[in-house]
Amino acid sequence: MKLPLDYRADITFGARVRPSPFFDRTVAAGCTAFTIYNHMYMPTSYGDAEGEYWRLINDVSLWDVACQRQVELFGPDALNLAQLLTPRDLSDCIVGQGLYVPICNHFGGMLNDPVLLRLAEDQIWLSLADGDLLLWVDAIAKERNMYVLVTEPDASPLAVQGPKAEDVIAELFGDWVRELRYFWFRETELQGIPLVLARSGWSKQGGYELYLTDGAQGGRLWDLVMAAGAPHGIGPGTPNQIERTESALLSHGGDMDADVSPLEIGLERFCDLDKPGEYIGMENLRHMRDSGPPRRLVGLFIDGEPLPNSAGKWPVHQAGAAVGQVSSAVHSPRLHRNIAMALLKSEIAQIGNQVQVTTPAGERRAEVTELPFIR
Amino acid sequence: MKLPLDYRADITFGARVRPSPFFDRTVAAGCTAFTIYNHMYMPTSYGDAEGEYWRLINDVSLWDVACQRQVELFGPDALNLAQLLTPRDLSDCIVGQGLYVPICNHFGGMLNDPVLLRLAEDQIWLSLADGDLLLWVDAIAKERNMYVLVTEPDASPLAVQGPKAEDVIAELFGDWVRELRYFWFRETELQGIPLVLARSGWSKQGGYELYLTDGAQGGRLWDLVMAAGAPHGIGPGTPNQIERTESALLSHGGDMDADVSPLEIGLERFCDLDKPGEYIGMENLRHMRDSGPPRRLVGLFIDGEPLPNSAGKWPVHQAGAAVGQVSSAVHSPRLHRNIAMALLKSEIAQIGNQVQVTTPAGERRAEVTELPFIR
Repeated sequence: MKLPLDYRADITFGARVRPSPFFDRTVAAGCTAFTIYNHMYMPTSYGDAEGEYWRLINDVSLWDVACQRQVELFGPDALNLAQLLTPRDLSDCIVGQGLYVPICNHFGGMLNDPVLLRLAEDQIWLSLADGDLLLWVDAIAKERNMYVLVTEPDASPLAVQGPKAEDVIAELFGDWVRELRYFWFRETELQGIPLVLARSGWSKQGGYELYLTDGAQGGRLWDLVMAAGAPHGIGPGTPNQIERTESALLSHGGDMDADVSPLEIGLERFCDLDKPGEYIGMENLRHMRDSGPPRRLVGLFIDGEPLPNSAGKWPVHQAGAAVGQVSSAVHSPRLHRNIAMALLKSEIAQIGNQVQVTTPAGERRAEVTELPFIR
Repeated sequence: MKLPLDYRADITFGARVRPSPFFDRTVAAGCTAFTIYNHMYMPTSYGDAEGEYWRLINDVSLWDVACQRQVELFGPDALNLAQLLTPRDLSDCIVGQGLYVPICNHFGGMLNDPVLLRLAEDQIWLSLADGDLLLWVDAIAKERNMYVLVTEPDASPLAVQGPKAEDVIAELFGDWVRELRYFWFRETELQGIPLVLARSGWSKQGGYELYLTDGAQGGRLWDLVMAAGAPHGIGPGTPNQIERTESALLSHGGDMDADVSPLEIGLERFCDLDKPGEYIGMENLRHMRDSGPPRRLVGLFIDGEPLPNSAGKWPVHQAGAAVGQVSSAVHSPRLHRNIAMALLKSEIAQIGNQVQVTTPAGERRAEVTELPFIR
């Protein structure tokens, strides 16, 4: 993808792509760019990349991430189905708890990496990355005659992220939110607006996600959070390519896809490969564990002048041989250097190894390093 | 979705969304707007809506529709799997033939509406509308232990559409293309560029789709077609919201989705509900046939001044009661009036019936009419 440096194109608004319950507010707040994610518009910029980054790092930021759609499993077989879908052992997962769960196909490739929320004994949500996992889950459930309904509920996350998020959310909901453990959640309401409040979000700066469960009340919820956040410097923001790369948060479809195993991208700790019972991908995942993953996701420090952010896939080579691909690259304002995530052949993936990267600004030397870049 | 009339927002370019093999050429040709479709950028405008429409109606237009991704079924069970996936009877489908096939879930709802291409006895493509049908097909195949590989091949359609498309394609490939029947295809090449040439495309103005099967040669193919088309007035274009509404071509995710039955939207003729063998959705589809579809897709003539095109879902009511929704609405330059497709309660769907539509320009009277608007 060779984009002229000054190239800009509009996003098309149409009937095939759904607006979020917060859409009007994001437009009114000055959203300047969107992507499409799970068939919905997702804001990606309010026109001040640097300001939005530092607001997330230092203060608090409000994100329309309603595009993180839920797949709901409801019925006596809900947990059985979830156990079948992921190599992670869910047997200790209790109501009110959330877990990050790799979802694999029969070859052990990554179909999606949702957060699982156990809302009730017989009710589970999978909060999705970009992809129609509903089709997969529904097919598996129906083909196995499982006693479970697979649907998309009316549940639209609004993320409040950044170090001051806790104060904002505590003012709105009370001090109990300060005790909430990471990924845990509670069903609650705000001035009559029903929602699920979780300590989660696609940054490592701390924060919460409010899963609005009445799509008609998006504007009211947005306004209430904005008002409570005003004294703390809240402003509109979006999932941040720089921060998430510094923090090594993976993007499905970017950093990995169905051709990549969770064992190749540092998700081993979420795979209980010997858990009791069957799960999809079991044989191939166990085989890869025993034989060793062929590739590894690593960090790269890339030499030279600041590189453009978010620039697609860049080939990585060593001594003229192709050894992998960069999937996310940014210039880190906190580290003052170019950083990237790359999937490399395992024999190349040792810390300190030197490689070459074909960037839009030409060939650059790079050094393999640990992930994340910033903890 | 309430968009200020002058609102424009950029589309974000990033690693999660793939460029097409023709992407560089579309940018160089002046593409001004994109959407995202099947995780790829799809051009939606070159900045001259009226010119692009008339070029499609009168001349010939070149569209990057590489986002119409293929699901390939390959192996001894390829046809068995396809028969399971659609209520359409495929037993007469021979190699070289294409068919429009509704794909339904177990409740008989529309998951996708691809064109099926039978490339070989044991090789089938489904050329998709927007949605990860691959996940569905793969799950069904694996759960039934069918002997078939389900993959996404390197196959990127480039559409040549309009009344002069036949001359352009005949100059490039020979006069045999003039005899090709609708939806039929042939595997061929152009100056060493491998492709599948089909008489098809998402307009009713006639034309072809070139399924490029070497993604590295997108630029060359684009240039060759542009050069051959120059004497015929070819120019870049996109699937056209006005033309496709006039022609009543349905958009999955816009005009219908998994909550809609093929029997509600005029696709009965593609459903052989009593075909031999099992297919997914069979029971519910037969039941709906016997009890009568609760809704019908109809045309509407909407009164008054020209309405904005492509403006999302509009409620339809009659005597104060909600009776359905508009899904596509345009002002037709050939009919000189506002036209729309709407899914209405069956008892309201009689030709000539009067309804009210809540448009962005206020309440309008409308009359139910036949589809398509222009044959």
